[in-house]
Amino acid sequence: MARIVKLTEVGDSSVLKLVDEPVEEPKEGEVRIRVQAIGLNRAEVLFRQGRYLEKPIFPARIGYEASGVVEALGSAVSEFKVGDKVSTIPSFKMSKYGVYGDQVVVPASSLAHYPDSLTPEEGASIWMQYLTAYGALVEYGNIGPGDYVLITAASSSVGFAAIQICLEKGAIPIASTRGSAKKQTLLDAGAKHVIVTNDEDLVDRVMSITDKKGCRIIFDAIAGDIVNQLAQAAAYQGTIFEYGALSLAATPFPLMLALDKGLTIRGYTLFQITSDPAAKDRGKKYVYEGLKSGKLKPVIDKVFPFDQIAQSQDYMESNQQTGKIIVKV
Amino acid sequence: MARIVKLTEVGDSSVLKLVDEPVEEPKEGEVRIRVQAIGLNRAEVLFRQGRYLEKPIFPARIGYEASGVVEALGSAVSEFKVGDKVSTIPSFKMSKYGVYGDQVVVPASSLAHYPDSLTPEEGASIWMQYLTAYGALVEYGNIGPGDYVLITAASSSVGFAAIQICLEKGAIPIASTRGSAKKQTLLDAGAKHVIVTNDEDLVDRVMSITDKKGCRIIFDAIAGDIVNQLAQAAAYQGTIFEYGALSLAATPFPLMLALDKGLTIRGYTLFQITSDPAAKDRGKKYVYEGLKSGKLKPVIDKVFPFDQIAQSQDYMESNQQTGKIIVKV
Repeated sequence: MARIVKLTEVGDSSVLKLVDEPVEEPKEGEVRIRVQAIGLNRAEVLFRQGRYLEKPIFPARIGYEASGVVEALGSAVSEFKVGDKVSTIPSFKMSKYGVYGDQVVVPASSLAHYPDSLTPEEGASIWMQYLTAYGALVEYGNIGPGDYVLITAASSSVGFAAIQICLEKGAIPIASTRGSAKKQTLLDAGAKHVIVTNDEDLVDRVMSITDKKGCRIIFDAIAGDIVNQLAQAAAYQGTIFEYGALSLAATPFPLMLALDKGLTIRGYTLFQITSDPAAKDRGKKYVYEGLKSGKLKPVIDKVFPFDQIAQSQDYMESNQQTGKIIVKV
Repeated sequence: MARIVKLTEVGDSSVLKLVDEPVEEPKEGEVRIRVQAIGLNRAEVLFRQGRYLEKPIFPARIGYEASGVVEALGSAVSEFKVGDKVSTIPSFKMSKYGVYGDQVVVPASSLAHYPDSLTPEEGASIWMQYLTAYGALVEYGNIGPGDYVLITAASSSVGFAAIQICLEKGAIPIASTRGSAKKQTLLDAGAKHVIVTNDEDLVDRVMSITDKKGCRIIFDAIAGDIVNQLAQAAAYQGTIFEYGALSLAATPFPLMLALDKGLTIRGYTLFQITSDPAAKDRGKKYVYEGLKSGKLKPVIDKVFPFDQIAQSQDYMESNQQTGKIIVKV
């Protein structure tokens, strides 16, 4: 039997039930993997709460990111063979293909190899974070040497990925974080400047760091009221990528600043990259090479055992982490 | 003596005072023109009211667009000679260079020739409207055959320009207007579809016209609450250009729709084009060729005499016009 996390209702982490189910056989275009590690995502917490873009269809699976070993292939799968070390690129409906489990079936198109030098825990900490940051910063934002890039909520796994990608591209990552607790970690992770928003004025600090130019690219997971400050911190013709909704407040479009500066505010999720085959391929290649060279390196915060999957989500909601939360299967 | 419109305070149209002043001599890089026609802009009404991006410095001139004949050259001006038919590209401070007058001095960089086939009234109806629409639709929006383009407040001079540029590029212009009074005029001007928002649901009509795809480009002068509807009417990865602020309400950023669709909302004014020499040159060439071929043709609504400059702004504020309001000097 396979052990799979299932939801029959939305709610707090107690709705995550570990159930025994017959091992599933992969169909055409699908692959079954024996899961070694699961990487947690904020999207899964929102999904569990019924607040994510995808609404659960009960009984629902859950989970976007896992690493493991290929153990069975459906028909029409040529890129993988049994025994391959792979991890998942979030590009499927969680209700159907969610990867919180020890043996799970996913579409072959959502799998990728990862470099041998990485542990399975690191393998489960790749695609969501690096492809998300890659899409906004490289594919759409085209960052390059000398660009100032402001990264809010920077101690998330995507935040760390964004810092590393900035450094690889020669851009200057400015990290913002609410409290001072994570400041040193962010500096250690490569942020050139860290703004502690509880203690410092975000706009003043950005203007001082950038010699009044502002940031050409802002990569924001928060939304809500902070967007007014981000618009002030943006450079002429800058772009603010909104890729999350950590704030639950309504988000303004700062019209007068946007007209004056020619600002762009762009809603962005990883799915815009995973649904574009050419962009997805470029991203996979970029990330694979970066991992291989060591310029990109997943930052892992804490590892939970599989039977503490509920606690692992509680921990994510506590916002104490810096980097990826992993569940070992 | 020259007759110049001056403001010494903000307010209703009665603050526009016609005064006699010594004829000004052009300095280095400047040109004096004998004005034949003035084209009115919404920006000037806002400037007069103190609500525009540029605030008046009293005593202030006013006015962005005029056509006329070159009558004196400052030093270091090589592109123009006395007697040339020219019109102004809004790319200067109105307080200093405002063109409401019969003899005005402007920077040579803000002048352009216009085709001989156009009247002076048409010559004063070119650059603001066509370059504004060109910048968003062509330079940034890259519209092409088959693209659905929604144009709000479409009966303005910029709206007509946008319709004509869509047709020239093979895109499908969908015009929206509040009341039914201007519907036929918009169809006659080339709009493929007209949505009367007082009588019809904007989103339903766009989805029906576009076979549920939505519009790839939305060119909006209104902002405020309508942006929620525009986000619904936008295609996957569509772009909404906000180029005005006709609504005085706060403008939302529709975060969940933006995340789901990967929407871009971009603040935009003509100054982003006029401050980019390469883009400005491309735009000038595009517009000149379009005017020469007849594919672009200014739509003039009404012509006022110079001593009715205040009435001409009142008329603009009444929103009865379809096309450009001209003051003959």
